[in-house]
Amino acid sequence: MEKIPHRTIGRLTLYWRILRDLAGENHSHVYSHALASRSRVTAAQVRRDLMVLGYTGTPARGYDVHKLKHHIEVFLFPAEEQRAVIAGVGNIGRALLKFFNGRRPKLRIAASFERNPDKFNRLIQGCPCHSIEEAGEVIRNTQATVGIIAVPDEEAQFVADTFVASGIRGILNFARTPLHVPPDVYVEDVDLAMSMDKAAYFARQSLKSEPSKAVIKEIHL
Amino acid sequence: MEKIPHRTIGRLTLYWRILRDLAGENHSHVYSHALASRSRVTAAQVRRDLMVLGYTGTPARGYDVHKLKHHIEVFLFPAEEQRAVIAGVGNIGRALLKFFNGRRPKLRIAASFERNPDKFNRLIQGCPCHSIEEAGEVIRNTQATVGIIAVPDEEAQFVADTFVASGIRGILNFARTPLHVPPDVYVEDVDLAMSMDKAAYFARQSLKSEPSKAVIKEIHL
Repeated sequence: MEKIPHRTIGRLTLYWRILRDLAGENHSHVYSHALASRSRVTAAQVRRDLMVLGYTGTPARGYDVHKLKHHIEVFLFPAEEQRAVIAGVGNIGRALLKFFNGRRPKLRIAASFERNPDKFNRLIQGCPCHSIEEAGEVIRNTQATVGIIAVPDEEAQFVADTFVASGIRGILNFARTPLHVPPDVYVEDVDLAMSMDKAAYFARQSLKSEPSKAVIKEIHL
Repeated sequence: MEKIPHRTIGRLTLYWRILRDLAGENHSHVYSHALASRSRVTAAQVRRDLMVLGYTGTPARGYDVHKLKHHIEVFLFPAEEQRAVIAGVGNIGRALLKFFNGRRPKLRIAASFERNPDKFNRLIQGCPCHSIEEAGEVIRNTQATVGIIAVPDEEAQFVADTFVASGIRGILNFARTPLHVPPDVYVEDVDLAMSMDKAAYFARQSLKSEPSKAVIKEIHL
C-alpha cells in the first residue's frame, strides 16, 4: 500500500474527477482508452493505475463508471473526517481557504495561523485564526494531519518544522523553498511562480518557431 | 532550442531562485552538489540541465553564482516585456493577480476577463476587467501571449479556445479540466484539488505505517 508512486495517486484523483463528470452526464460505462484520452495518458497507463485498486473492467463494455468511481473514493478519500491547518492567510491563503472548504466533505481546514496579531482570535473565511506560537496545541487538539504553507518563503521552513513536530504528516507548500522534512512526511510543492515562468517561456518559444514555419511555406509556394 | 523538456525548464527556474537566494547571502560560488541538494535532485541532473545553457563550472570552485544566475535569466526570462491576461477574477483569480503582478518586471498581467457584468470596465487589483466577449480584441491590442484560466471547470475549454484563437501560446490552467489545444500551445495545469488530495492521502498512509514501526521497536527492545 505504501509503495504506490506519488504520480499514480495524482492520476487516480484525475480519473475520479472524470468519472464524476461522466456520471453527471449519465454515462454508465467507459473504456480505458476514453478515460486515457480525457486524462492525456495512455490506455495502458490507465489500466496499470487501476490495477492498484484491484479493479478490472469487462473488456466488452469497459469500466462501470459508478463502481469505478466508488472504488477510487474508498481508496483515495478518508473514511472519517480528516483535518488540515493553514499557515498564512494573506491573499493566497484566504483564496485557498475559500477554495478548499466545502469541496471535500471529509477534509476540513480546521484552523489557520498568522504572525500578524490583528488577525488572531478572528474567523477568517469561517476558520479560526491563531498565533503560529499556538500551532502545536491547536494541531494536537484538532488532530490535523495536513498542513498548508502559504507564508513568505523565508518563514516556510520554520512553519514546516512546527507542523512536523506537532503531528502533521502531509504538507501542501506554496512557498518557493525546498522544505527539509523527515522521510515519513510528504510534501507537495505548488510553485505558482515556476508554473507562470514555464507558461511564459513556452509561449515565447512557440512564437519564435512561427517565422521559420512561414519561411518554409514561402519556399513551397 | 524547442526540444528542451518541460521539466528542465521547471528545474532551471528553481536553480535561478536558489542562486538569487545565494547571491543575497553573499555566496560567490556554488558546487553542483550543493545546488542539487537544495533542489532535491542529483548533482548529475544539475550538470545536465546547465549544459542546456552552454555553461560549465570550474571544478575547483564550482559555479560562479552571479554569472550562472545571469545565464539562466537570459535563457529563461523575456528580453522585452511579455504580457499575460487572466480569465476569472473570483477568489483564486484575484489572489493570482496580486501574487503575479510586480513579481517579474518583464511579465505583466495586462487585462482580466469576467462573465459578471458588475466587474466590467473596472480596475481589479490594478488590472482592467473586460467582458470575455472582448477577449479577442483585448488580447490582440495588448499582444498578450500568456493566458491564465481561473474560471469554473465547465467554462475552461471555451476560454482556452478563445485564448488560442486570439494568439495566446502559453496557458496556466487552474480549472480541473484537461484542455484540448493545438500542439504549438503549451498548457501548464495547476490542480489545487489534486495537490490537496495527494497531501491528505500520503498523510494518512504515513500515520497508518506508524503502528507497524512501533511493533518493530517492541520486538527489538
